[in-house]
Amino acid sequence: MFLKSKEIHLKCTHCSQITAYQKASIVCPLCGGTILQAEYDLEELVHCHWKDKLSTRYPSLWRYHELLPLFDSNHIVTLGEGWTPLIQAQRFGKLIGLDYLYIKDERQNPTGSFKDRQASVTISVMKEQGIKEMVLASTGNVAISYSAYAARAGIKLWAFLSGLTPDEKIREIQLYGAEVVKVPGTYDQTKQVAAEFAQNQGIFLDSGLKSFTSGESMKTMALELGEQLHGQAPDWFIQGVSGAMGPIGVVKGFEEMMALGMVDKVPRLGMIQSSGCNPMVQAFEKGEREAIPVTDPKTAIATLATGNPGFAYSWLYDLMQKYGGAMEQATDAEAYTVTRLLAQTEGISVEPATAVAFAGLIKLAQRGIIQPQERVVINCSGHTYPVEEQILTEEFAPEASTQFKW
Amino acid sequence: MFLKSKEIHLKCTHCSQITAYQKASIVCPLCGGTILQAEYDLEELVHCHWKDKLSTRYPSLWRYHELLPLFDSNHIVTLGEGWTPLIQAQRFGKLIGLDYLYIKDERQNPTGSFKDRQASVTISVMKEQGIKEMVLASTGNVAISYSAYAARAGIKLWAFLSGLTPDEKIREIQLYGAEVVKVPGTYDQTKQVAAEFAQNQGIFLDSGLKSFTSGESMKTMALELGEQLHGQAPDWFIQGVSGAMGPIGVVKGFEEMMALGMVDKVPRLGMIQSSGCNPMVQAFEKGEREAIPVTDPKTAIATLATGNPGFAYSWLYDLMQKYGGAMEQATDAEAYTVTRLLAQTEGISVEPATAVAFAGLIKLAQRGIIQPQERVVINCSGHTYPVEEQILTEEFAPEASTQFKW
Repeated sequence: MFLKSKEIHLKCTHCSQITAYQKASIVCPLCGGTILQAEYDLEELVHCHWKDKLSTRYPSLWRYHELLPLFDSNHIVTLGEGWTPLIQAQRFGKLIGLDYLYIKDERQNPTGSFKDRQASVTISVMKEQGIKEMVLASTGNVAISYSAYAARAGIKLWAFLSGLTPDEKIREIQLYGAEVVKVPGTYDQTKQVAAEFAQNQGIFLDSGLKSFTSGESMKTMALELGEQLHGQAPDWFIQGVSGAMGPIGVVKGFEEMMALGMVDKVPRLGMIQSSGCNPMVQAFEKGEREAIPVTDPKTAIATLATGNPGFAYSWLYDLMQKYGGAMEQATDAEAYTVTRLLAQTEGISVEPATAVAFAGLIKLAQRGIIQPQERVVINCSGHTYPVEEQILTEEFAPEASTQFKW
Repeated sequence: MFLKSKEIHLKCTHCSQITAYQKASIVCPLCGGTILQAEYDLEELVHCHWKDKLSTRYPSLWRYHELLPLFDSNHIVTLGEGWTPLIQAQRFGKLIGLDYLYIKDERQNPTGSFKDRQASVTISVMKEQGIKEMVLASTGNVAISYSAYAARAGIKLWAFLSGLTPDEKIREIQLYGAEVVKVPGTYDQTKQVAAEFAQNQGIFLDSGLKSFTSGESMKTMALELGEQLHGQAPDWFIQGVSGAMGPIGVVKGFEEMMALGMVDKVPRLGMIQSSGCNPMVQAFEKGEREAIPVTDPKTAIATLATGNPGFAYSWLYDLMQKYGGAMEQATDAEAYTVTRLLAQTEGISVEPATAVAFAGLIKLAQRGIIQPQERVVINCSGHTYPVEEQILTEEFAPEASTQFKW
């Protein structure tokens, strides 16, 4: 109810046209551009008292509803996502030479990854817009998350999954009742197939960074960090990157908090890619603003196997020029080693894509790019969870060849 | 720092002797009894202002430190556990005829189950007591949770696992660096083997309900419910039961809140067991205070396969006589069916032991024992997560026969 009075505008990243956001306005009315960014009346918000009440609000990302693109709280589709713990990693930090390392534990979201932020905000906006059916392409985590929230909202979901998606993740997606289409190809090819299907069928396509709700959702990580660190932004924000939606959203969050007087700066970005799929790293090393796609990713880590980052890299590159930052890469083997090290020093078990970020962080510290005294926050993006394989196999995928074990 | 001034006493459940709790006092000095319950100076606390500040405190179970058995906050071993979301289940509730069904989403804990409460409180107390090594018996979830927190605290953990423990859970436990001992028998047999090992080696044994920290940790669920429901206790608290530690702790939490004027009542208990291992249900139906052990559990759901509940059942029985409640049971097949129903209506994916509780809830509603208008909270105790099987298999269990898939 409480959201109805706010004003939101959408700015086209192509022609800079600014339009009042209304239901169903998801393309630029001037040029047809599809990459829009939400803008809020920050001057109005800076004088409001909502900031003083923040600390007593319910700990989910929706506590920042003034800065989220929803008009009516009745449309919120939530599983309690966000406001994840910020955990100081003293033992692991000491091992790698960092005195103030903090882990933003995104594993503690409803489906175990930071994609739940995106699903909650996007599905809520879709509910507000009256959309009943949608298509997306995924390497696994996004589809798991969206299928959970779509089930909750009663929205039909078509999940197109790339060839690397593990069977366990596919079973989880099916459990939520989504329609699964396996594409025997790369993530980039899967996105293409999904887009064609959506267009042919006239179904709404959620296209990652191009859907303005994605960046809006990811920025809530920054809003939480500002509150958890009492207005002192970290010196560095570290994340494994594939499509770059996370860091782009996080920077927007810090920028908005700067405008609202809630933090003191925007952190530098430490962006880590898999060595087997590193188009951004290659371009960044050469100082280039455009990345050459990797057409044949050589990594087993599906979540990081985006060969063609497209405009997202250029966007990220510009932000890193403005606020500072560094790119690094890590091999799958390095990631697996770090998985064990992190579990045994901090009690934190992560999925391989997350381990790549930790492995890259070690290198940035070793290279002296990150200094021992700097405050570092790393996005601990997803969990290595035990699955009740027997159950899911027997009941939900009876055709699977896995042997039932008891 | 802030915890040092408080007074805690331990009451022996055998001889009722009350002793001031100090470091290392973990048995009754009068009779040697090992089942102790913590007591706090509630009369002092009722006049304090800490309750007014609760809503601004960090959302973890440690926000209730006045009611937890730790003296020095420097000993807290935390991964941000607790203060899990309370999610209203409107669609699933409507299907089963309940208007006010709330899911306490314990999946959103650091290792994905409510056992993280127990691990955080117990390992913190062990750290305070200077204990460096410990033994426990488990069917999986407790060992996963303890191994994570023990790793974080630098405590060596011996995990004795029953024969039903899934391989995925064992790998997760090994990832954290715990010593794993697989016992090819029931959970009751595993507990016996673990106890003998601990005694022979002179290592501290964590023995579930007998360790007073366990009940203390579980009661934090009640404290959170009191706060999340604004002082109105639910009419029912539902949980799948095996060792009964959860509900016994929860009742203690509501009792303390009653004494502190923070809630209006103690809820009735809806306790669900697996049909294949239902010693409590059998005894309760006959109105008996002692349960006859099930020596050969016939369920594939390890988490609920405690054949001999021992004194825990009598304790629970007394509480259910005092506050009201009902017992129910569900088969494995019923649990699997409910897993799908819950995922597709609410976007919540649960492990089989949790699904048993939901299946039993349906029966309690159908039988009219729970009325449509009553407020019901169910402990959504653990997650059905996808595991990155490939990684864990290849790196951490190279001897496993599972085929590497890409």
